[in-house]
Amino acid sequence: MDPVCCHLVRGLPAIEEGDDLAAMVRERFPVQDGDVVCIASTVVSKAEGRARELEGYSPSARAEEIAGKLEKDPRFVEAVLEEAAEVLLDDPFLLVATKFGHIGVNAGIDRSNVSQGRILLLPVDPGASAERIRCGLGKECAVIVTDTCGRPFRCGVAGVAIGWAGVAPLRDWRGERDLEGRELEITLEAIADEIAGMANLLMGEGGDGTPAVVLRGLSLPKAGGRLFRPRELDVIRACLSSRDRRH
Amino acid sequence: MDPVCCHLVRGLPAIEEGDDLAAMVRERFPVQDGDVVCIASTVVSKAEGRARELEGYSPSARAEEIAGKLEKDPRFVEAVLEEAAEVLLDDPFLLVATKFGHIGVNAGIDRSNVSQGRILLLPVDPGASAERIRCGLGKECAVIVTDTCGRPFRCGVAGVAIGWAGVAPLRDWRGERDLEGRELEITLEAIADEIAGMANLLMGEGGDGTPAVVLRGLSLPKAGGRLFRPRELDVIRACLSSRDRRH
Repeated sequence: MDPVCCHLVRGLPAIEEGDDLAAMVRERFPVQDGDVVCIASTVVSKAEGRARELEGYSPSARAEEIAGKLEKDPRFVEAVLEEAAEVLLDDPFLLVATKFGHIGVNAGIDRSNVSQGRILLLPVDPGASAERIRCGLGKECAVIVTDTCGRPFRCGVAGVAIGWAGVAPLRDWRGERDLEGRELEITLEAIADEIAGMANLLMGEGGDGTPAVVLRGLSLPKAGGRLFRPRELDVIRACLSSRDRRH
Repeated sequence: MDPVCCHLVRGLPAIEEGDDLAAMVRERFPVQDGDVVCIASTVVSKAEGRARELEGYSPSARAEEIAGKLEKDPRFVEAVLEEAAEVLLDDPFLLVATKFGHIGVNAGIDRSNVSQGRILLLPVDPGASAERIRCGLGKECAVIVTDTCGRPFRCGVAGVAIGWAGVAPLRDWRGERDLEGRELEITLEAIADEIAGMANLLMGEGGDGTPAVVLRGLSLPKAGGRLFRPRELDVIRACLSSRDRRH
């Protein structure tokens, strides 16, 4: 097998609402069938017009209460609550499930790389965003929309996939055998997250970040599986829900 | 920048206790200064003689109790408890903090790729294992020992770093500026996990897995930072500890 190589897509300008990301990537990198094109959610959000003015939010009583606890701008908290389908934690940080199923602090709302007084919401439906970009690329490639998230138990943030198209987010090892011919204990591998993490590492953060990375040489399953753990199968989430709030 | 390329180290035999992994990698791949050599914890454990016979374990009363709840072999539960510094959950699965600080289900003990009736413990000190392998490689390279772990909130397992040498597990973005010149919100990136995830994807699972992957072309910080979140800074862990056990 040839090595798997990860290419930065150089020279993308600052992204504006309405920009055609697929065309902008295509013009700068010769995407081929089989490539995995990873794009940072920040630029997808900007292209989709998901930047908002904090001024535009009128905090609810709940937003004011949480903002008081967290010493945050109530308008920012209101924005998080409006993006949330469920609040998992509201102290000492605001951990929510977004309407599209992703769980992240502050609903993944970004205040970096946008102007003062503005925030950047995650795409409404990152899977649909990935599919649109994939169609625009015009190749039999995969597209993964990445975000950076903190994790329980481990320090630091890491890249994860919040949207995907042309690739299964999970590789199913069921029925595979180990060296001794025994069934594998590991059955589902979150390949989209593993790819997103590597892409995130190469993208970098901040002003000199590169929001698009193309991986070439991977052989991946094309479809199937879900990445966002359903509530009923999430023991940790259940523990948060049953948490002693006085604690 | 040239692309970052990920190379499988082909042709490694089944690893036995006492094998010199560094030499075995060196003989099969020309490791260079600056490379990141990722090695699966399974082969590190085998080389370090961490395979055990289930027969060798005498279950404690607690192991018997947990085994009853989980319908697992009490000897296996005993092995997990002996590797654990703290039990975070014992139902519906056994989530523990290992003595070296990593949090994982069943203390990362593997029953795949070992013979019937045998289990494979994680290395005693994967950081020290990484440092030994790095010294044996004789290059200014980084070494990351990888394992696969489930995660709250997201389906599937992903590769993570449980030991590292010659690289900082976290990249510190503090003081960096975004496109607008504002301080970044994201300050610490778990680069060792992002690399381990990609390596894990390429290694594959099961009988035809390749337990060593070399990444070339990365520019990484050399030292500093910790990857295992300290208990006092882990809100989710605190929630598990304060969990209503009747729930």
